[in-house]
Amino acid sequence: MRAEHILRPMGAPPELEDQIAEVAVVRSGREPATADWVAREEPLEIRLHDVPLAVIMRTPGHDVELVTGFLVTERVVASVGDLVSVRPCPEAPSPDAAGNVMQAVLRPGVAVDLESLRRNLYASSSCGVCGKATLENALAAAPPLDDPARFDAAFFARLPSALRHAQPAFARTGGLHAAALVAPDGAVVTVREDVGRHNAVDKVVGAAVRSGRLPLTGHVLLVSGRVSFEIVQKALAARVPVIAAVSAPTSLAVELAAAARIALVGFLRGDTCNVYGATDRVRFDAAQGRD
Amino acid sequence: MRAEHILRPMGAPPELEDQIAEVAVVRSGREPATADWVAREEPLEIRLHDVPLAVIMRTPGHDVELVTGFLVTERVVASVGDLVSVRPCPEAPSPDAAGNVMQAVLRPGVAVDLESLRRNLYASSSCGVCGKATLENALAAAPPLDDPARFDAAFFARLPSALRHAQPAFARTGGLHAAALVAPDGAVVTVREDVGRHNAVDKVVGAAVRSGRLPLTGHVLLVSGRVSFEIVQKALAARVPVIAAVSAPTSLAVELAAAARIALVGFLRGDTCNVYGATDRVRFDAAQGRD
Repeated sequence: MRAEHILRPMGAPPELEDQIAEVAVVRSGREPATADWVAREEPLEIRLHDVPLAVIMRTPGHDVELVTGFLVTERVVASVGDLVSVRPCPEAPSPDAAGNVMQAVLRPGVAVDLESLRRNLYASSSCGVCGKATLENALAAAPPLDDPARFDAAFFARLPSALRHAQPAFARTGGLHAAALVAPDGAVVTVREDVGRHNAVDKVVGAAVRSGRLPLTGHVLLVSGRVSFEIVQKALAARVPVIAAVSAPTSLAVELAAAARIALVGFLRGDTCNVYGATDRVRFDAAQGRD
Repeated sequence: MRAEHILRPMGAPPELEDQIAEVAVVRSGREPATADWVAREEPLEIRLHDVPLAVIMRTPGHDVELVTGFLVTERVVASVGDLVSVRPCPEAPSPDAAGNVMQAVLRPGVAVDLESLRRNLYASSSCGVCGKATLENALAAAPPLDDPARFDAAFFARLPSALRHAQPAFARTGGLHAAALVAPDGAVVTVREDVGRHNAVDKVVGAAVRSGRLPLTGHVLLVSGRVSFEIVQKALAARVPVIAAVSAPTSLAVELAAAARIALVGFLRGDTCNVYGATDRVRFDAAQGRD
């Protein structure tokens, strides 16, 4: 077998070239090495004015939405109105970094305690180091939803296939998470893909912020993977009453969903699903409950 | 349908009670709500002596290994010998937080620049905000492997089922990632589960550190999910020549693997797999390459 570990960039379909890249691959012994598409992953630095706030690994594309969503769902800005602009930093540190540094500008007079923000993003105060305090902190930042939204279980059945069909980059690479915003009438408003689950959600929320849709009363946030605490926290910040997921939730995700009045629809496969948290938001056909 | 969103802790099998929890669930309309097991997720604060370094969301259990692995793979300690002890903090800030604060003690005389560490963990210098510089930084911290290890492709075929059988918490919840260390003779040395992919890897590496196995020459790191840049960076720090994964790699994962001389076996399903990065580490049966 020949050594073949040189990268051979060969381009991607133009509409996906931000999101996927070609690399050398040996497929089950079929030499010589050929090319395979993989999900692109690159660092993105988020700056508040000129001060670096965070670096995240993400799939390039929809970066303005990503940063907008990040700032809102991580509560860096208390309200959307505090955000004046989000754009690529005009002075990229190097040509290779062009597009990988985004700058957010806040409304004059909005005070930001950067040290405290970084602490909140990456560490918590000692008293927060348990599930109970983590929930309390989340609910102190955003109160439980009083959204009256209710959904028939049938509403969710077609969502996984709708999501799959709207994942062109996943279809090529098998390596991206997706999130989608679903309107109260069932229309899929936005689908975004990213190597990071949190980023896909931030892109969807950011798009909603930029089109003036927040708060997301009556909407559903659909995610391709698992539901952790942080996903529920982001949904709560965007005021989404229902999260639907193809896979499993964690304990703290369920606990926050219950306390925040968010329904968490998990294991959404075929006609079946589990409902956690605010289970009363999902109505089942009476016939379904019988054996 | 009755509102049923009160948590009803009901206990878990004793051997798994750290890792899974019971919550209320409505299963496809089968009321009343019953109980379901989900993966436990709780914050863990890592302290260097008395100074908080990071808070991560993790599945409790194997926390000494997790913190040891984190400190080594994130290069907080330059060598294992710099680490004197890792243990639960004797003064937990509250009874609920007991067990969620871990303290690492370094060898006297080891200087740690905490500010710089936090920057490295959560942000990068501006010049690092592109794929190329990210790779260069990773390779400056840990040089490419000169491990001569080679594996027959057949070596990998049975690993996914071995991993599945060693995932008791996943089997109950469907909501945990797993990582495993596989010895050169094919023996599965350690399997760890966690809600976080990175944590599962850190637990496996931490166990190897504590049993004196590092550097992991000739070993394989097996992961249940996707392979991102950070997983390859952790493998490089532990000096593992091969990462095998059930799912897809990202572009930067493949690029770092190629530059670091790590073979990345992806889409490991049945008898087939793709090999990226240092593809020459995997030998295929000559017959396999023919149609």
